[in-house]
Amino acid sequence: MQFSSALLENAVNEFAKLPGIGKKTALRLVLHLLKQDTGEVTHFSDIIAKMRSEIKFCQRCFNVADGDICSICANSMRKQEIICVVETIRDVIAIESTQQFNGTYHVLGGVISPLDGIGPDQLNIESLANRIKKEQTQELIFALNPNIQGDTTIYYIQKKLQGLSCRITTIARGIAFGGELEYADEMTLARSLQNRLPVESYVNSR
Amino acid sequence: MQFSSALLENAVNEFAKLPGIGKKTALRLVLHLLKQDTGEVTHFSDIIAKMRSEIKFCQRCFNVADGDICSICANSMRKQEIICVVETIRDVIAIESTQQFNGTYHVLGGVISPLDGIGPDQLNIESLANRIKKEQTQELIFALNPNIQGDTTIYYIQKKLQGLSCRITTIARGIAFGGELEYADEMTLARSLQNRLPVESYVNSR
Repeated sequence: MQFSSALLENAVNEFAKLPGIGKKTALRLVLHLLKQDTGEVTHFSDIIAKMRSEIKFCQRCFNVADGDICSICANSMRKQEIICVVETIRDVIAIESTQQFNGTYHVLGGVISPLDGIGPDQLNIESLANRIKKEQTQELIFALNPNIQGDTTIYYIQKKLQGLSCRITTIARGIAFGGELEYADEMTLARSLQNRLPVESYVNSR
Repeated sequence: MQFSSALLENAVNEFAKLPGIGKKTALRLVLHLLKQDTGEVTHFSDIIAKMRSEIKFCQRCFNVADGDICSICANSMRKQEIICVVETIRDVIAIESTQQFNGTYHVLGGVISPLDGIGPDQLNIESLANRIKKEQTQELIFALNPNIQGDTTIYYIQKKLQGLSCRITTIARGIAFGGELEYADEMTLARSLQNRLPVESYVNSR
């Protein structure tokens, strides 16, 4: 692409660095901003810079926070003795959007993946163990993605916590609501058979 | 979507204002920026703000420019006596990318569209007429989108320029290269029959 302005070209190149944004989309975004008032664009750029420089991570659960402790940990209405272990901040947002969980979180920052060079030490696992001991957590719910890395991480943490009187569970895996048996992969189908539910509990949970 | 940080939420909302970016994509972009160094994100935001506040529009052709005159108008290697009339800056970039045009541009800033309340006065038409008179332009090439609004604009400008010894042309309309006759709309097919080319000139232009 040929630009007659270096300012425009730089802005397009910056946008094109974002994931899923190609040069053409970047150009569309930049031309959109060019049509806005200078004040609005300055506001946009300030909000972005401020977000990056001022955002903090909760010292307790490693979720994003505006202060030292995130709004979920600081909320006394939530069950602080239940911890849901997730991989990333995005998972927290996904679970919060269901409005079905009233406990707290612990963001691992990834999962154990030797192929990617990620071991337990790079994740927030030590702090999780300390937190459980200190707070005498009653239940730990794993909400990790159902793959080898997720399962390895669950296995590792569960081993590490042996001896603590904390109930450890994982979110149900099975056929997704609206999914079709025919198209489910064998592993999901096999697991959903193994972990079958009594119909009463299924009907009651609807 | 539920966010535990107002800083994050504001940033997502700002990104979601951009065209074609929904909340989920906005979140992905913001979480990507959150993973970058503060310096890089500040650089990103500075480039955007600088682009909007410092970019200028060429006083001659209304293309984007870093100074008073754009790099195309300032380039003495280009044929200043040929003007290609386009709707937006994006069209300039598209034509420049072909590397086949060595003249200058004139960006109208839109096309005449009474339904959208856009009349000739809102467009850079008066300045085009003045420019042609002053510079004794030899050829005016219309490169507008082939629709009613584009055709109306061509008709209006051509009427306005009557009496000037400037050659007025428009880019060829017809079946796109790689297109199939079968799927072409009737108007395009009819026009491409009317404006058929001698085979020699077609073969030579390849």
